[in-house]
Amino acid sequence: MNATHPYKALRQFANDVFVKIGCSTMDAGLAADVLLQADLRGIDSHGLARLTGYVRLWEAKRVNSKPDIHKVHESPSTAVVDGDQGLGLVVGPYAMSIAIEKAKVCGTGWVAVRNSNHFGIAGYHAMMALQHDMIGIAMTNASPLVAPTHSVERLLGTNPICVAIPAGTQPPFVADFATTTAANGKLEILQRKNQQAPVGWIQTKDGQPSTNPHELKDGGALIPLGSDRDHGSHKGFCLGAWVDIFSAVLSGANYGPWVPPFVSFLAPPADPVGLGIGHFFGAMRVDAFRPADDFRQHMDQWITRFRSAKAINGQPAVVIPGDPERESTKKRMEEGIPLHESVEAELRKLGDKFQLTF
Amino acid sequence: MNATHPYKALRQFANDVFVKIGCSTMDAGLAADVLLQADLRGIDSHGLARLTGYVRLWEAKRVNSKPDIHKVHESPSTAVVDGDQGLGLVVGPYAMSIAIEKAKVCGTGWVAVRNSNHFGIAGYHAMMALQHDMIGIAMTNASPLVAPTHSVERLLGTNPICVAIPAGTQPPFVADFATTTAANGKLEILQRKNQQAPVGWIQTKDGQPSTNPHELKDGGALIPLGSDRDHGSHKGFCLGAWVDIFSAVLSGANYGPWVPPFVSFLAPPADPVGLGIGHFFGAMRVDAFRPADDFRQHMDQWITRFRSAKAINGQPAVVIPGDPERESTKKRMEEGIPLHESVEAELRKLGDKFQLTF
Repeated sequence: MNATHPYKALRQFANDVFVKIGCSTMDAGLAADVLLQADLRGIDSHGLARLTGYVRLWEAKRVNSKPDIHKVHESPSTAVVDGDQGLGLVVGPYAMSIAIEKAKVCGTGWVAVRNSNHFGIAGYHAMMALQHDMIGIAMTNASPLVAPTHSVERLLGTNPICVAIPAGTQPPFVADFATTTAANGKLEILQRKNQQAPVGWIQTKDGQPSTNPHELKDGGALIPLGSDRDHGSHKGFCLGAWVDIFSAVLSGANYGPWVPPFVSFLAPPADPVGLGIGHFFGAMRVDAFRPADDFRQHMDQWITRFRSAKAINGQPAVVIPGDPERESTKKRMEEGIPLHESVEAELRKLGDKFQLTF
Repeated sequence: MNATHPYKALRQFANDVFVKIGCSTMDAGLAADVLLQADLRGIDSHGLARLTGYVRLWEAKRVNSKPDIHKVHESPSTAVVDGDQGLGLVVGPYAMSIAIEKAKVCGTGWVAVRNSNHFGIAGYHAMMALQHDMIGIAMTNASPLVAPTHSVERLLGTNPICVAIPAGTQPPFVADFATTTAANGKLEILQRKNQQAPVGWIQTKDGQPSTNPHELKDGGALIPLGSDRDHGSHKGFCLGAWVDIFSAVLSGANYGPWVPPFVSFLAPPADPVGLGIGHFFGAMRVDAFRPADDFRQHMDQWITRFRSAKAINGQPAVVIPGDPERESTKKRMEEGIPLHESVEAELRKLGDKFQLTF
């Protein structure tokens, strides 16, 4: 049974937990905001379900709750930010703000980040650009769970990309997706329901097709978007590689198999090639290309045309990226956020430790 | 039977054809260079096989061989270029050069293009950045042949993306791919061989799975990368949409179903929403992020590690993006470029028209 809880109570709880581990008032509020946006948007795997994990990484001294986040290099339209091992939930918005400031002056701003941690949903950061009439881009590398095409080794993370594009009277276009066929969160849902995965999501430790959602625990791997060579998994590999290189080789973070794991019970690689995990952010001022009103009007026309596409018999309408997450947000703000019982139990334990409740 | 021909002879032939349709000496040389790079790299569908098509579009007055390509808007790191209905083969390098010049000053440069035509392989344009120690990005929209997930209508092109990243002692990373499960060129190969396509590449005009490589002629559609909803085709749709919006909504070109067809026997839509087709280019100076030597060294390590990944039993090694195209180039420079007999026959006819041979 999944009980639902009001957004405000859960946000306050997350905020207070971040304060307890030493975050400043501002950082705690920001981290709670990023985290809860995932729950609101229906991306449960990236919201409160991760709070205990962040605390464990702090306990293991792998998250710095009082980071000195700072620029280490810059040009008019670029910067590299060192996150000082801070929460990605805090480092991300800091770096994205720099990208936005640079775009105000230069037309675009691009920021690569090293020495960070898991930054929640890419969508939060990319969407920061929207209120400035900018297109926002956010990507991050992640612990290696994905085998490139032909490989038995796990060398890439699920390496998500988000592109957020403002419109006029239509809601913005927000595409936020892992560069694998299925994200890890989808496997977790199958694990809880005791169901098999479709062929093409995962492979065994020997690289053979598998439908076992627990396969990763036995050394198996997620598969890049495309599922197999015949269906373009080498393109999904290209995407994941692109994210990895922009996030980490440009910034000086760890890349590929050297990315430190997100769970405290797995030790980071003993031979790091960089600092922490890496992100990459971009902001592009729409009116650095054409008058913003023209752009908005054509985005509205783009969205309206695609939304009204004739659907395949028996299938739903074409989904404009961002629509499902916006509907989820509306619903959950009104009706509360459902927590899976295992997540709720974990959060209660965390609350007991810190004398907090929700 | 496919006869092979020396690169130089074919390049000269293409050059001379472009001169015959009125291109300047410089434009003809550039267009021939872009076109032949596709043949050298093994992307036969985008090379000489398209030359007759370009000429037909010129005959239909849909390609302007003497374009006044010019900037219509700019900021320190951005520009919009109007291609004046020129060959994309010429407009692309012009726009990419602006991106590179802006990156020299600003760290990065981003150019959206309207009023252009088919630009050949995305890789040519993106790779222009490499010799400047820059990362290059190129994308383009294209005539609608792809149905978004759930749609029976064809609303997107195969909308390719190329990301080219310099390395040190290793060759560059060059990922150049259509955002569909399979590019149209792959269907053409099956058509010639009279073979069926794998399920997941194409759908019928009613949106049902098909293996008929001729399905597009009957109103069928290509499918976004991912093949079906369960395997992430909505992500492939996001990618194709991203390319379409950056290429055309940012620039003022036609987007989605309004993109004019590449073939002269199909008329452009009567109600255009912009000018011609659109491209989007980016150049990022590596040392706008970190010292170029550090970057090169880590790219070498990235490439070496992925190349040496343990392969699945019976499968080849992990392919570093760009390797197959580089090997093809080497081979075809030495042994000549094979032309399919139908392509050769078409080129001979074109030669007869212009009193040219190869």
